[in-house]
Amino acid sequence: MQLDYDSFQHQYKTPFGAVTQHTPVHFSLAVKANAAIRQVILCMVQDGHWDEEQPLTMTRIEPTRYQVTFSPTDAGLYFYYFCVVTDNDTVFYGCVDGGYGGPGVQYARREQVQMYQLTILAAVEKLPRWYREGVAYQIFVDRFYNGNADGHVNAPKPNSFIYGRTSDLPMYIRGADQAILRWDFYGGNLRGIEAKIPYLKKLGVTILYLTPIFQATSNHRYDTGDYLKIDPILGDLADFDHLVHALHHAGMRLILDGVFNHVGVESRYFNRSGHYDTVGAAQSRTSPYYPWFTFTNYPSDYDSWWGVGDLPTVDKTNQSYREFIFGSSESVIDYWTARGVDGWRLDVADELPDDFIAGIRQALDHYADKVLIGEVWEDASHKLAYGQRRHYLEGGGLQAVMNYPLRQLIIHVLTGTMAPADWWRELMTLKENYPQTTFQFNFNNLGSHDTPRILTMLQDDLARLRLAFGMLLTLPGVPCLYYGDEAKMTGGKDPDNRAFYPWARADQAEIQVVSQWTHWRQNHPWLNTANFAPFYLADYGIGYVYWQGHAQVLVVINVTTMTQQMTAADCELEVVPDQLATAIKQQLVGKKLPGSQLQVIENFT
Amino acid sequence: MQLDYDSFQHQYKTPFGAVTQHTPVHFSLAVKANAAIRQVILCMVQDGHWDEEQPLTMTRIEPTRYQVTFSPTDAGLYFYYFCVVTDNDTVFYGCVDGGYGGPGVQYARREQVQMYQLTILAAVEKLPRWYREGVAYQIFVDRFYNGNADGHVNAPKPNSFIYGRTSDLPMYIRGADQAILRWDFYGGNLRGIEAKIPYLKKLGVTILYLTPIFQATSNHRYDTGDYLKIDPILGDLADFDHLVHALHHAGMRLILDGVFNHVGVESRYFNRSGHYDTVGAAQSRTSPYYPWFTFTNYPSDYDSWWGVGDLPTVDKTNQSYREFIFGSSESVIDYWTARGVDGWRLDVADELPDDFIAGIRQALDHYADKVLIGEVWEDASHKLAYGQRRHYLEGGGLQAVMNYPLRQLIIHVLTGTMAPADWWRELMTLKENYPQTTFQFNFNNLGSHDTPRILTMLQDDLARLRLAFGMLLTLPGVPCLYYGDEAKMTGGKDPDNRAFYPWARADQAEIQVVSQWTHWRQNHPWLNTANFAPFYLADYGIGYVYWQGHAQVLVVINVTTMTQQMTAADCELEVVPDQLATAIKQQLVGKKLPGSQLQVIENFT
Repeated sequence: MQLDYDSFQHQYKTPFGAVTQHTPVHFSLAVKANAAIRQVILCMVQDGHWDEEQPLTMTRIEPTRYQVTFSPTDAGLYFYYFCVVTDNDTVFYGCVDGGYGGPGVQYARREQVQMYQLTILAAVEKLPRWYREGVAYQIFVDRFYNGNADGHVNAPKPNSFIYGRTSDLPMYIRGADQAILRWDFYGGNLRGIEAKIPYLKKLGVTILYLTPIFQATSNHRYDTGDYLKIDPILGDLADFDHLVHALHHAGMRLILDGVFNHVGVESRYFNRSGHYDTVGAAQSRTSPYYPWFTFTNYPSDYDSWWGVGDLPTVDKTNQSYREFIFGSSESVIDYWTARGVDGWRLDVADELPDDFIAGIRQALDHYADKVLIGEVWEDASHKLAYGQRRHYLEGGGLQAVMNYPLRQLIIHVLTGTMAPADWWRELMTLKENYPQTTFQFNFNNLGSHDTPRILTMLQDDLARLRLAFGMLLTLPGVPCLYYGDEAKMTGGKDPDNRAFYPWARADQAEIQVVSQWTHWRQNHPWLNTANFAPFYLADYGIGYVYWQGHAQVLVVINVTTMTQQMTAADCELEVVPDQLATAIKQQLVGKKLPGSQLQVIENFT
Repeated sequence: MQLDYDSFQHQYKTPFGAVTQHTPVHFSLAVKANAAIRQVILCMVQDGHWDEEQPLTMTRIEPTRYQVTFSPTDAGLYFYYFCVVTDNDTVFYGCVDGGYGGPGVQYARREQVQMYQLTILAAVEKLPRWYREGVAYQIFVDRFYNGNADGHVNAPKPNSFIYGRTSDLPMYIRGADQAILRWDFYGGNLRGIEAKIPYLKKLGVTILYLTPIFQATSNHRYDTGDYLKIDPILGDLADFDHLVHALHHAGMRLILDGVFNHVGVESRYFNRSGHYDTVGAAQSRTSPYYPWFTFTNYPSDYDSWWGVGDLPTVDKTNQSYREFIFGSSESVIDYWTARGVDGWRLDVADELPDDFIAGIRQALDHYADKVLIGEVWEDASHKLAYGQRRHYLEGGGLQAVMNYPLRQLIIHVLTGTMAPADWWRELMTLKENYPQTTFQFNFNNLGSHDTPRILTMLQDDLARLRLAFGMLLTLPGVPCLYYGDEAKMTGGKDPDNRAFYPWARADQAEIQVVSQWTHWRQNHPWLNTANFAPFYLADYGIGYVYWQGHAQVLVVINVTTMTQQMTAADCELEVVPDQLATAIKQQLVGKKLPGSQLQVIENFT
């Protein structure tokens, strides 16, 4: 018996990828059997209802082709496989090991079957144009630029250290038990960001994503001390307002980091050491903040983020906390959004219940043109966190996530640790699993404050760095540069990835290259809604094509270091429409593609 | 048989204490024996000539008293004991265990005898009046005051940290192996010292002793980088000249720290990492500095101070190094002394050969009124360093040493860990062993950058702190305050003893008390050349008396916390002349002395 199916291909499944609920999805299976076929079934399982498989009998529409239509009733995930019963035997067909879409495999036993994913949306998200067509830039604020003319650090914190020079490499000051003894600062601040708006504009940046800026103890400020106060080392509220005004005046937008899972142990809310003049949860059970936390042994033992005592976890089901963060007109979200913040990136979204995220989203939706992004490290379409399936992207929640999986694909294919075919299949799987708007407008990056820098990941190979920038700026999604990557900054994991931007030593040529890419991207806004298909070239290259109307953009990349002569057999263009595939081959076959080179070919038909 | 001798008493030995060579010293021994006395011998041994005892036969001058006169031929130390041979037995008499002067004990066997010390000087030192009558103040420069109006740190070093606030407590930034990863700075500087001259004058300070100020890597600068350059973080040569001028204009003097045993591994001379643009010893064997160092495996292994690789030891016998430090008109000593430095404190004097110290002294003696002090931690009159007897104070070398033994006596008697009788005996021993000028003008302290702070040593007892200041300012020797002790700074060993001076929080009342003492001292310049005798009051008190002509100053201190009623029997006035002792008793007997109180009684006869 031979079964054929390919979730990427329209002849087997249509429409492609995720759909909204009640949208009919047509499935088709090719079946060749030597024995008489008794039953061909599409087995559909709603996420979590593992004992309630829906057997959908497929109808024979051609001698070897069976079809059925499924209309999902609920948003969320469905999983499916096929089952064919003949006189001789029963055969199953599911996806390949790893859960990737595309062609699958036959299984002899039901319990071996891995199922295909079908993503169903409650609603299609709309994202604001400034976001969809933007180029973002992530700034770790302490490490970007000090806008004080004399270089003084605004308001150094008690028991902290300031780097002697901004060219010093970052380090943690730790005790024997590895605990941070004192926090280290360079003194980057809000005026510094404002002062660099001309640089950012020249670089083609239109969106800034800032790591946290509210008062805190650490240099990263993920340990919020006061959600309603700008950290004095960064400036004051006037500096913030001035920055927002200047950004908007420059046509730029601002995304802030919302850290709502936990607070700092020295925060106004927990207030362990009494640094704040109001009564915190650790000081008295009568504190208004006491119900926000979960004490197992008051006040010394309490729930905290990954057991880090410095970061007491807040109970996100607590009504007063929800009101404080998003549930009243004076909430944290409202306070800052009303002051001009254009979007939020939710830290550790996995820790935030779906209805908490939805509450933030609803608060944001009171304003026009805002965006809500989440920190999720994996394919967010099927993320399980703490045993719960998450519904981040199915409508009314997050509008995008930090696209770390795409980063992995870029790094792996460029460093030769992933074959072009696998790169293609994994990218196609993301395209299939994610809502179309997510795939088109996900928050892409080559690195962040939580990863080694891209140049370091690429083993300091400058040719690969150029390829990575080219891919980031030509692949679907909203590109977000991590500050200084464009200046060839290097650095492994935290804190090496958080050095101060080397203003005096930045590589102007590389900045120019990145700038050319960002402007190219901005000159091609149609790409964001165009058709898109990736492909690969044997074992040496990858590529992708956008098309819309008469316009096309073709990108091909030789990921090896040697020149490759492209042949017709090399071109694996499975998901590209035939006519376009022919045109692409005409462009490529017989040509030489130099090693480590990315070529863009536009409007070639 | 009963032998009596007391090196402190004129009837047994005269003159008291150290003498210049060729000065006849008269010894007298009381002998009561039941058997016929055959021989009474003063056995004199020149230091190091242990097998060449000189037996000096003592002559009977009274029925029970024998005498002999010894004229030492050489400067240095002699040691002596007595031997009495009768028909029945042979008895020896030497000093008590521990080597203290005063009354000794009889020994049955020669090998048990501990010998008395007799210090012989090559010459009597003359010290400049500004030093003799001065009150000094030690400043750890990074930790005193930042004289920049905007508080910026002059020139932070690469890979260093600046404390966020001057109120932060000091700490080392160490790696897992305890090595310093980066040096920590507060940013105190030369202009800061100059700005505080009014404060210092009000405090009664007339001499500043600064820890090193030459270019170096660390915050303490004992790792000299360039002997001819002011460390840029402290200021520049103009700042230095300005400070010197301002100090002299204010009637004050300046002592610098001379660190000549070793240099920094990153110094111009060793230049391991090539930070300096000249060729260092670690870079090439052709370096002019190569012969300064002792490499055991070039360039990685070399002699260093206590094995600390950061501090390569310099060969002090190397002629080019000696010329560089003191042996030419452009030497380090000359360069800075010609610019107005009034004195030098030699770091780790134990590591400097006597002729190296003498060379520095000769260089200094080209200028008028300079002083040379050394860092020696013990009784420097008999210090053995590396198996060699040192001759620091016998003339032509050091003129004083940091008087840590006196500090110990003050702390121990005030904390009750030393009985008043022992305090008296140990102080008398210092008086006996040291040249008179050393005892009168030694560089006294209650603490330094190398010890816990005095208030911490006194267990934060403020009453004891007052006693300690009173003793420092009324005992013989040049008092040197450690910056901030007057502001009640606390702190254990390094780095806790090196906090930044708490300008905003200094205890003005304590400063006022110290100021009163310093001015009292300066109003009694005759004390420096007066007769001086310590005494003690049973087990609860100590005291001392100065007298000269018709003037007297009597100091009595109750070291307990309870009021004590003084009786005649309490008064142990052995080394006080009889008439004066009677007058002292008239002042004290029958009076009540409150606990933890120091009383000064002047001109009481």
